[in-house]
Amino acid sequence: MAETLIKVDLNQPATQNEQVHNRWHPDIPMATWVNPGDDFILETYDWTAGAIGNNESADDIRDLDLSIVHYLSGPVGVKGAEPGDLLVVDLLDLGAKEEAPWGFNGFFSKTNGGGFLTDEFPSAQKAIWDFHGIYTSSRHIPGVRFAGQIHPGLIGCLPSKELLDTWNSREQALIDTNPTRVPPLANPPKADTAHMGKLQGEARDKAAAEGARTVPPREHGGNCDIKDLSRGSRIYFPVYVDGAGLSVGDLHFAQGDGEITFCGAIEMAAGWVHMKVQLIKGGVEKYGIKNPVFKPSPLVPNYNDYLIFEGISVDQSGTQHYLDANIAYKNACLNAIEYLKKFGYSGAQGYAILGSAPVQGHLSGVVDIPNSCATLWLPTQIFDFDINLSPNGPVKYLDGSIDMPISPDL
Amino acid sequence: MAETLIKVDLNQPATQNEQVHNRWHPDIPMATWVNPGDDFILETYDWTAGAIGNNESADDIRDLDLSIVHYLSGPVGVKGAEPGDLLVVDLLDLGAKEEAPWGFNGFFSKTNGGGFLTDEFPSAQKAIWDFHGIYTSSRHIPGVRFAGQIHPGLIGCLPSKELLDTWNSREQALIDTNPTRVPPLANPPKADTAHMGKLQGEARDKAAAEGARTVPPREHGGNCDIKDLSRGSRIYFPVYVDGAGLSVGDLHFAQGDGEITFCGAIEMAAGWVHMKVQLIKGGVEKYGIKNPVFKPSPLVPNYNDYLIFEGISVDQSGTQHYLDANIAYKNACLNAIEYLKKFGYSGAQGYAILGSAPVQGHLSGVVDIPNSCATLWLPTQIFDFDINLSPNGPVKYLDGSIDMPISPDL
Amino acid sequence: MAETLIKVDLNQPATQNEQVHNRWHPDIPMATWVNPGDDFILETYDWTAGAIGNNESADDIRDLDLSIVHYLSGPVGVKGAEPGDLLVVDLLDLGAKEEAPWGFNGFFSKTNGGGFLTDEFPSAQKAIWDFHGIYTSSRHIPGVRFAGQIHPGLIGCLPSKELLDTWNSREQALIDTNPTRVPPLANPPKADTAHMGKLQGEARDKAAAEGARTVPPREHGGNCDIKDLSRGSRIYFPVYVDGAGLSVGDLHFAQGDGEITFCGAIEMAAGWVHMKVQLIKGGVEKYGIKNPVFKPSPLVPNYNDYLIFEGISVDQSGTQHYLDANIAYKNACLNAIEYLKKFGYSGAQGYAILGSAPVQGHLSGVVDIPNSCATLWLPTQIFDFDINLSPNGPVKYLDGSIDMPISPDL
Amino acid sequence: MAETLIKVDLNQPATQNEQVHNRWHPDIPMATWVNPGDDFILETYDWTAGAIGNNESADDIRDLDLSIVHYLSGPVGVKGAEPGDLLVVDLLDLGAKEEAPWGFNGFFSKTNGGGFLTDEFPSAQKAIWDFHGIYTSSRHIPGVRFAGQIHPGLIGCLPSKELLDTWNSREQALIDTNPTRVPPLANPPKADTAHMGKLQGEARDKAAAEGARTVPPREHGGNCDIKDLSRGSRIYFPVYVDGAGLSVGDLHFAQGDGEITFCGAIEMAAGWVHMKVQLIKGGVEKYGIKNPVFKPSPLVPNYNDYLIFEGISVDQSGTQHYLDANIAYKNACLNAIEYLKKFGYSGAQGYAILGSAPVQGHLSGVVDIPNSCATLWLPTQIFDFDINLSPNGPVKYLDGSIDMPISPDL
Repeated sequence: MAETLIKVDLNQPATQNEQVHNRWHPDIPMATWVNPGDDFILETYDWTAGAIGNNESADDIRDLDLSIVHYLSGPVGVKGAEPGDLLVVDLLDLGAKEEAPWGFNGFFSKTNGGGFLTDEFPSAQKAIWDFHGIYTSSRHIPGVRFAGQIHPGLIGCLPSKELLDTWNSREQALIDTNPTRVPPLANPPKADTAHMGKLQGEARDKAAAEGARTVPPREHGGNCDIKDLSRGSRIYFPVYVDGAGLSVGDLHFAQGDGEITFCGAIEMAAGWVHMKVQLIKGGVEKYGIKNPVFKPSPLVPNYNDYLIFEGISVDQSGTQHYLDANIAYKNACLNAIEYLKKFGYSGAQGYAILGSAPVQGHLSGVVDIPNSCATLWLPTQIFDFDINLSPNGPVKYLDGSIDMPISPDL
Repeated sequence: MAETLIKVDLNQPATQNEQVHNRWHPDIPMATWVNPGDDFILETYDWTAGAIGNNESADDIRDLDLSIVHYLSGPVGVKGAEPGDLLVVDLLDLGAKEEAPWGFNGFFSKTNGGGFLTDEFPSAQKAIWDFHGIYTSSRHIPGVRFAGQIHPGLIGCLPSKELLDTWNSREQALIDTNPTRVPPLANPPKADTAHMGKLQGEARDKAAAEGARTVPPREHGGNCDIKDLSRGSRIYFPVYVDGAGLSVGDLHFAQGDGEITFCGAIEMAAGWVHMKVQLIKGGVEKYGIKNPVFKPSPLVPNYNDYLIFEGISVDQSGTQHYLDANIAYKNACLNAIEYLKKFGYSGAQGYAILGSAPVQGHLSGVVDIPNSCATLWLPTQIFDFDINLSPNGPVKYLDGSIDMPISPDL
Repeated sequence: MAETLIKVDLNQPATQNEQVHNRWHPDIPMATWVNPGDDFILETYDWTAGAIGNNESADDIRDLDLSIVHYLSGPVGVKGAEPGDLLVVDLLDLGAKEEAPWGFNGFFSKTNGGGFLTDEFPSAQKAIWDFHGIYTSSRHIPGVRFAGQIHPGLIGCLPSKELLDTWNSREQALIDTNPTRVPPLANPPKADTAHMGKLQGEARDKAAAEGARTVPPREHGGNCDIKDLSRGSRIYFPVYVDGAGLSVGDLHFAQGDGEITFCGAIEMAAGWVHMKVQLIKGGVEKYGIKNPVFKPSPLVPNYNDYLIFEGISVDQSGTQHYLDANIAYKNACLNAIEYLKKFGYSGAQGYAILGSAPVQGHLSGVVDIPNSCATLWLPTQIFDFDINLSPNGPVKYLDGSIDMPISPDL
Repeated sequence: MAETLIKVDLNQPATQNEQVHNRWHPDIPMATWVNPGDDFILETYDWTAGAIGNNESADDIRDLDLSIVHYLSGPVGVKGAEPGDLLVVDLLDLGAKEEAPWGFNGFFSKTNGGGFLTDEFPSAQKAIWDFHGIYTSSRHIPGVRFAGQIHPGLIGCLPSKELLDTWNSREQALIDTNPTRVPPLANPPKADTAHMGKLQGEARDKAAAEGARTVPPREHGGNCDIKDLSRGSRIYFPVYVDGAGLSVGDLHFAQGDGEITFCGAIEMAAGWVHMKVQLIKGGVEKYGIKNPVFKPSPLVPNYNDYLIFEGISVDQSGTQHYLDANIAYKNACLNAIEYLKKFGYSGAQGYAILGSAPVQGHLSGVVDIPNSCATLWLPTQIFDFDINLSPNGPVKYLDGSIDMPISPDL
């Protein structure tokens, strides 16, 4: 039986747990140490550490202080790991803590973080998803039920000081191009809400002032939000500091490619990760690795019947953009949402389905100037009813009586 | 036995074949007519109609006049089709013409079209792929062999005059922002090399001056280069003109997501499409369709073991970009190419593999400011050797003695 | 372009084609020779060489002289092949001859061959299937349409004289246990309808008197009727004679596990096989091979939603049998047929679906005395309607107006 | 959080747990009651309730009293269920009890139960498998590691008295044909080791004397040992008594088709099942159901690269049998074992792999008299090394220093 090296208590503030942290910094002390070849379990908070409730209001989404995220379990020190090594991580299994078989998916207000389609969905909204064994369904979105593909939204090793400085300087340069933008272009370090694990006193304050925020994915992996880092997968992480310092959190029960709703995926209220670590000495150089590389699990939901929506890089105003895959994917998503509305879903429900269900987003054409072509793959087998086209047109499955809670800005 | 309604003769210039065309315009006369429910066969030129040879030089790639592409077979008129209908197209089968069991993949010079990684691969190069039944391999890229997923790179219905005007005006507006850029931001109509099918005289000249170029995907589908529009798939196209006017061409034996090499995919020297058409009257409104929607085939190569490379939106100079999925995907591709080089491939060979083999490109994270995260999925089962990571590091499979022909700019 | 080494002409009697044969005997001369590494095409008759028509009567099924089957194309001599080698055969592609895009599935009369469920379906019946690109459907069985998985029902190398003698003696010993049984336990050599390829005169007569019938699968492969030997698969055959002598025929467009209807599968009216051969010298000993071993194709229809029916080894009279997998599978089949009848199919249509569509038959439990447990996997995605269970019970999709032609015994 | 309605304590004899039983009889009182629509958890013993140890001796396998099996959790009464209904059971999830992350696979002595290949492997042997998250590996069988597909070997509803009598009489009739056979043809009721749940006193003694043994699968499902009844699957069971009386046990972490080693599969030391029940009133008649019908999970290990071994119905002595699928499958298994030996496995290790790993067993040809053709599908991706054929012959991966414990008969 694998040992649980980090535990979380949902009744205790995450900031009191010295084995979690919410910034990236090489000075954060290892929360625990393991040997190469060990397997062990880490428990995890949800990314907000309990700020979002299983209830009928989106006020908590609207009012969330986004500077507190993400609460990560770690760093785990791996004995013998040195910069330039590859840390091989097997995600042997992941699950929900027994007392919390549920998760949430939400849209942030455009004035507080926003999301992929924030222009179309500017207000805070929320859907609660219940877990039934391998399946999930939402009382706020009738007619869909699917098997999850549990994965950590965020996982990676501590950066070196040099890498951290690179991050901070390049992101600040971007912020400086439009420092008052809402939502912002990027987030700089923010000391007051930083939780630096065991680090205390001056050392803590110094590191907190420098610690990189956890939102973006970066060279070390981090908040990649890749739905395919699921149980059974194997990941090869570059090591930047002695001991590697592996941290993990932000567990998702399921997610579509892109995590488009941002407070996206089905965020698990509390979870655990069973993992094993090994080393490839000098692997970064041997294999020419810059970002993590991984192999997906042999065990993923086998939904293979799709309706596929195309989008091109012409925005909603009709303006042509040059090979902009983001706009193309937005259009593919909007096309899918319009389609879902014909069956009775609200736009918000459609949007939430794209953020929660195992949809795929492909960069289908990236060279045919000036239009990028992106495709959104909607699995038909997750619906309780027939979502396909037919000569007679769509049959409304939903009567509109159920929708997601909404909390407009105050 | 289905009738072949359009034939192509590789020994005849495509411009003499009145059943092909290389521009989009509502005035192009139907090449042939069918009834809803009919199935029929159309033969197709390669997109350049024979300009690229099965030989050891990339000069033809370097010197190609890109204004001649793409030669499409059609338009096929469908009796009873009206604007607002959905044209349901079953791609029942596709194949290579018996006399041409080969295709090509190439990189254009940066000064003549370029490609996704044109900064890294600025010169014209070419690889020839031979077809062996369902499989393909290239004498220029040893060590890979895979089953194809034949699909048309380009398929769609004629635009209405109004839609055509929209295309031309929005694309010209983009060109006007940087009209001297190399490669250009977009391509305006170009009358001299336009081939307008049966259209002759003044009517031809007028339409040729307005006819939209075929390179970009647009609302009607067009040059989507979606590898999943493969044999067995069903596509729902919006209809804009009476008779629909379905055209098809640019057949690919196989392709990776994105068709990243531009003269991308494995361009089939000559092919045929067996298709069936049906109508959903008023389907555009019934289902809220803006771009084509499709269902993939039940019959696609089942390569399910992948090495997955991540990329983020920081460019090669280290500059941070805001959620730029293109840069993220470029980085994922470059990471994969660096990896392949460790096994002995040249960079060009690695690049060509990504453009030809059934790699996937996913928009994995699109909301985690400021970094987009894209993933490039490289199927391991297409290699003759073990491409996975191991503690001992990579074993070189190739000795570098074979590479792709290159033709630097003159 | 691969060369077609054996051609068949549907207007010529197969018995006049010296490159086909219908018995196994080492003395049959090679029809053609190839080198290891060659790829080439062989055309094939249907197994009856044209005896069954595309029409509305099952008389031809009822009256077929089963001693004439199977007409095989070959033997192909492979230079350098010696007994003890493994012949590696890549089935690069298979298809229907252009002039014959159809096939048939039939039940033989219990008095003329019978079939798996001959007690329940004792009369001759027939269904015609039309091919539409990769798909097939039958005018005699509405409501099903699926992608085929074309494969040779019969393929293998010539036996040595010693192996042939073993076959003949062990099969005769079985026949001798009940020589008057209808249908027979096995079929002994039968000289008058034997077609021995190029062999003529006395040599032909001697070989014809000894030549093993082609119906059973044996050590060399032969009539295995394995639906997974489909295009793209690779097979390793034991070699018993110099030159190997590879023959192939009995092409199926699609088939369920077991080919349960005997005149089973969808028998292609005329086809071709594109194959490549290589040798593993001494491979039989190296790998301990007794029967052929193969690797399936990466390209098979991806129907993954199944209704699974169980059967146990208690026969229709209620008698308990000891671990009899055949009876268990019969019961699973009968259970599926009863189920299909609830949606309006006739029993015969249900039976034909099981013989033609890509159903799977698994030996699920083989040790739990006294009952064997077999499962029949029926893909739900091949039906035009919802074939699943629901609380309200089945909705009849068919009104019984269409059925398969039947021809009772005279 | 679903409630655990039945618990098992590995330190308590199963015979003292009134919520388990080891015989089928309609008089066994319901252990607990639920409503349609409820989901709940049942814990389960291994089938022997702890008789087999995680150690290095097969003595416990050799000496097991097979009359004590299988210990089942239940029966669960479902309110409102009546004979003729279908009980719809969703297997929402299954797992190992935290304190027992291991399982066993064994061969019984030919004199005590035997197994599928008992003639070839007549002695008791055992392999222990450890669970690492979704994966398993065995210290007794190096070189294999795979994701499990956890499923109950045994699940079904209580028989009616009439059905029970049918079982007992038809099985006794079989036994009577050879009552002294070793191993026996079937097992009659045996009162002394019967555990009848809550039933006590005379009622217990009467029922114990009649209670059907749990080894065979029967009309109600029972010990089907179908590896595809895995988590996420949905099963439709016929109901025979008021309240249905659903019982479950014999959890397997993984298994090959057939559970060929009998003490087969990887028998989980202790597990739990999270399930949900619903009713289709009158469903047996509505759908013509005789045996359970089920739909497999969308979440199964995706090993799709196979080496496939054929077998025909000629036994090891060379005798021809008539369409005997069991002999054909035995030969396919023996062929695979011979192959595995070429890579260094002992025969026992090969046999255990076939019983434990997700191999498939197909009834490939069932009509081609006199030979049945069965195929054994061995997934290549479960091996740490390349198990495919190559021109150079096999490379020994194992040196024979590790084997499975064996305990010859005393």
